[in-house]
Amino acid sequence: MAIEQALEELHNLLGERLTRAKSELDTHSHSESWFPSTPPDAVAYPVSQDEVRRLVQICARHACPMIGWGAGTSLEGHGLAVRGGVVVDFARMNKVLEIRPADMDVTVQPGVTREALNEELRATGLFFPVDPGANASLGGMAMTRASGTTTVRYGSMRDNVMGLTAVLADGRVIQTGSRARKTAAGYDLTALMVGSEGTLGLVTELTLRLHGIPEATSAGVCAFERIEDAVACVIETIQMGIPMARIEFIDAATVRAFNAYAGADMPEAPHLLVEFHGSPDSVAQDADRFGEIVADHDGSPFQWSTREEERRALWAMRHNGYYAILASRPGARAIVTDICVPISRLAQAVKETQYDIAGSTIPGPILGHVGDGNFHAILLIDPDQPAELAEAKRLSAAMADRALRLGGTCTGEHGIGMGKTAFMRAEHGDGWDVMGQLKATLDPRNLMNPGKLVP
Amino acid sequence: MAIEQALEELHNLLGERLTRAKSELDTHSHSESWFPSTPPDAVAYPVSQDEVRRLVQICARHACPMIGWGAGTSLEGHGLAVRGGVVVDFARMNKVLEIRPADMDVTVQPGVTREALNEELRATGLFFPVDPGANASLGGMAMTRASGTTTVRYGSMRDNVMGLTAVLADGRVIQTGSRARKTAAGYDLTALMVGSEGTLGLVTELTLRLHGIPEATSAGVCAFERIEDAVACVIETIQMGIPMARIEFIDAATVRAFNAYAGADMPEAPHLLVEFHGSPDSVAQDADRFGEIVADHDGSPFQWSTREEERRALWAMRHNGYYAILASRPGARAIVTDICVPISRLAQAVKETQYDIAGSTIPGPILGHVGDGNFHAILLIDPDQPAELAEAKRLSAAMADRALRLGGTCTGEHGIGMGKTAFMRAEHGDGWDVMGQLKATLDPRNLMNPGKLVP
Repeated sequence: MAIEQALEELHNLLGERLTRAKSELDTHSHSESWFPSTPPDAVAYPVSQDEVRRLVQICARHACPMIGWGAGTSLEGHGLAVRGGVVVDFARMNKVLEIRPADMDVTVQPGVTREALNEELRATGLFFPVDPGANASLGGMAMTRASGTTTVRYGSMRDNVMGLTAVLADGRVIQTGSRARKTAAGYDLTALMVGSEGTLGLVTELTLRLHGIPEATSAGVCAFERIEDAVACVIETIQMGIPMARIEFIDAATVRAFNAYAGADMPEAPHLLVEFHGSPDSVAQDADRFGEIVADHDGSPFQWSTREEERRALWAMRHNGYYAILASRPGARAIVTDICVPISRLAQAVKETQYDIAGSTIPGPILGHVGDGNFHAILLIDPDQPAELAEAKRLSAAMADRALRLGGTCTGEHGIGMGKTAFMRAEHGDGWDVMGQLKATLDPRNLMNPGKLVP
Repeated sequence: MAIEQALEELHNLLGERLTRAKSELDTHSHSESWFPSTPPDAVAYPVSQDEVRRLVQICARHACPMIGWGAGTSLEGHGLAVRGGVVVDFARMNKVLEIRPADMDVTVQPGVTREALNEELRATGLFFPVDPGANASLGGMAMTRASGTTTVRYGSMRDNVMGLTAVLADGRVIQTGSRARKTAAGYDLTALMVGSEGTLGLVTELTLRLHGIPEATSAGVCAFERIEDAVACVIETIQMGIPMARIEFIDAATVRAFNAYAGADMPEAPHLLVEFHGSPDSVAQDADRFGEIVADHDGSPFQWSTREEERRALWAMRHNGYYAILASRPGARAIVTDICVPISRLAQAVKETQYDIAGSTIPGPILGHVGDGNFHAILLIDPDQPAELAEAKRLSAAMADRALRLGGTCTGEHGIGMGKTAFMRAEHGDGWDVMGQLKATLDPRNLMNPGKLVP
C-alpha cells in the first residue's frame, strides 16, 4: 500500500522520530473540540527544514497526506488526519533562531510557543504580543491567522508575520516576505500562507515583528447595565484615538460563572476589562479619559490601577473565564463559537445571540474582544447527550448566519478547519471557488491537510 | 482582427465612453517614468461595476488585454499597454459610496483619489492616512500596495484595505474580506489582490479603514552630522514605543536643493522631519522625549511646534523636496528608485548608495521614510543623453542588489510593474514561479495587465 511504502521511507529518514505508537496516534487524533477522534497513520517529528523537505518529497511520491501539528490547541479540527496520512508534529523544531533587537524582529522555528518566545525575549525589553489565550505554537498561530486580547492594539498574525519559509506540496522551498518593514514586490505570498491552515504547505521558519514592552501599563474594569452602552463606550474611545491595548467584554452569565468559580462578588452585569500601554503619564491620562467616557455612557465608576498585582488579578479573571464557565456545568464539554462583526453591529449580534441561547436547552456565556467586534459563546453541552451537540451546532450556525447578515465573518480568529466549511459559500461566494483553484494549483493531489478550508 | 471585434462590442456597450481619440491614447501611453510611450488600442471609461463585468466578458471573448488606470501616477509603468488592448480608466467611477463613522470605515469606487476622499471625510472627524505623495487614486494605491510618510504609524494599503470587489479575467465577480476588523475565514484574497497591480482582476469597489483625525499634532526638525546618528535616534525612538506619525529622512544634497529652491538656509546636513499625533499633552511629551533622544545622538536641538502654519511649512518642504530636486538640474528628468531594508541596515544602505552616486556621472539626492527603512534616490538625468539613462539604471540595479543583500526588498512602495521584474528572481527565488502559477490559474490567457509583475 502506498502509505505503508511512505511510512517505511519516512522511518528510514527519521528513525524513532517516526512513530506509530498507539499513545502517540491517540494524542494526535483529537482536538479541543467536538470532532470525532481520527488517528493518523503515523506521527513524524522532524528536527530541521531539510528533514521537512525530504519528508514532503517522500509523502508526495506516495500520495500520503501531510498534516501539520503545533500545540494541538486548535478549535476547528485543523490537525485531524481525516484522510489518514502523517501528522507532522513540530514540537522538536522549537528553536528561537535569531533575535534582532534593533530591527525589533525575530526568526523562529514553527514549534516555538508564544510563551516560550516571550520567555526568551525577556532580557531584550521586547515582546511578541499576539495572545490567543492558549499557549499555542507560533506555526499553528500563523496557519490559523490567530489573534486575541491584544489585537486591537498590536494586530493579529496577519500583521505580525513579516515572512516565512514553507515547503510546498511538490517539495519546493519558498521564502516569502523580507525583513524590511514593508514591500511592494509582487503578490503577498506571506499573507496567502498566513491563515492557510496547512493546506498549501508546511511552514518551517517564521520571521515575526516584535514590540517594545511598554514602560507603564494601566488596567481597569467597569460594569454597564446595557450591552449597548458598553459598545458605545468602546466606539467613542476608538474614535477619540485613545489607544487601548486590550478591551474585553464579558456578559452577565460569564460574571456569574466567575463569581462562583473564584468566590468573587462582581455585579452580575456586562463588564468591560481594559488595558492601556505607554508612559506612566500617558497610561494615567488614557485611563482617566476612558473613565469619563464610561461615565457618559452610564457605566459604573471605572476602577483602574497601574499596580502589577491588581492588573494580574484582573486578567486572571479574563483568562480563567473559560475554566469558570466550564466549571459552571460539571462534566460539560465546551463548544466555542467565534464570530466577528462590524463594531456598530456588535451589541445587536450579542443580544440576538443571548436571546437564541436563552431559548435553547443549553447554557452559553459570552465573552469577546470587543475592540475588534469579535466574540465567543461558550456553549456547554453534556457529551453524552447527542441532542445537546445538535443544539450547539444549530446555535453556532445561527451565529455564523447572523455575522454574515451583519457584514461580518463566520470566524474572527479560530479559522475554518473542518468546523466552518459549511459557511464558506455564504461568506465568500465565488471567492471560495477561487480559494479552491489556488489550492489545486499549489497542491493538485490534495495532500496538504486534506479535508480542511477549501471546497 | 480580434481586438477590433472587441472594440466594436465595447463601443456598443460604452458608446462615447470608449474612445480612440489620439489625445486620449497619448495621455494613457506614458507614465511618470522613463518607459517608452506605448499607446493602447482604446481607452474605456466605465461608470459601474456591471459595466466593468461586461467589459471584461467582451475582452475575454476576444483575447483583448485589459489594463487598469487610476490617476496615472505610477512610477513603474503599471498602466502601459505593452501588448496593446484597452486601458480601463476608472476616472468616472469616483464615488464615495458609504461612510460609516461608528465603524470607522468607508466604501469607495476605485477612481476616488485620496485627497477627494479626505475632502469628503472632513465633517466626520475621520481621515484616510495612506499618503504616497501624489494624489493617486485609491484603486491604483491598492493595486500597487502603496504607502508613504504616515505608514510608520497607520500602515500601508496592505493594512488599510479591509476588503474589495474585483472582476476576474473570466468575468466572475468576487467580494473579498468583510467589514469585520479581522477574519480567519480562509485564504486572504484581499491581501492577494492588494499589490497585484491589475494582473489578477479589475477592482470595482474598496472598503477602507479610517482613522480619527488626531486631537493634536506636533512636528519638528533636527539635523545630524552623521546618517548613523539619525538612524540610531529613530531606532531608539521606536524601541521606546514613542508613537511617531511620520519620520522622514532627507540627506544633505536634498537640503541643498531645497535651500536653492525655496531660498532657505538650513544646514546642509542629514535631517529628520518628525510628527506626533495624539492629545495636546501626549504630543508635547512625545516631542520632548524625542528631543532628548536626539540630543543623546548628537543631533541639533529638536525644534518643534504644534502650530499649524509651522507644521505646514515643515511638510511643504518635504512634499516639495521632489520638485526642489528636479529644479536643481534644469531640464532633467527624474528616475526615482525605491528600496526598503531592515532599519538596522539603513545607514549602511544610504551611505553605500551615496558613495555609488558620488562616483557616477549624475546627481541623486536621497530622501525617505526612515521609520520603515524605505528610501529613494532621485536620479536626475538629461533625457537627451542615453548614457545617463543607462547610468541611472545601473545605479538603480545596484540599489536593488544592495537591498536584497541587506535582507530587504527591491521596492518598498512603488511596485514591480515593468521596471523591477529583473529583480524578482533574486528576491523571491521559486516564490516568483509560484506567483506565475497563481496568475496562470486566475488569468490563463494573460489578459489582465500582461507584461507586468509575473515571469
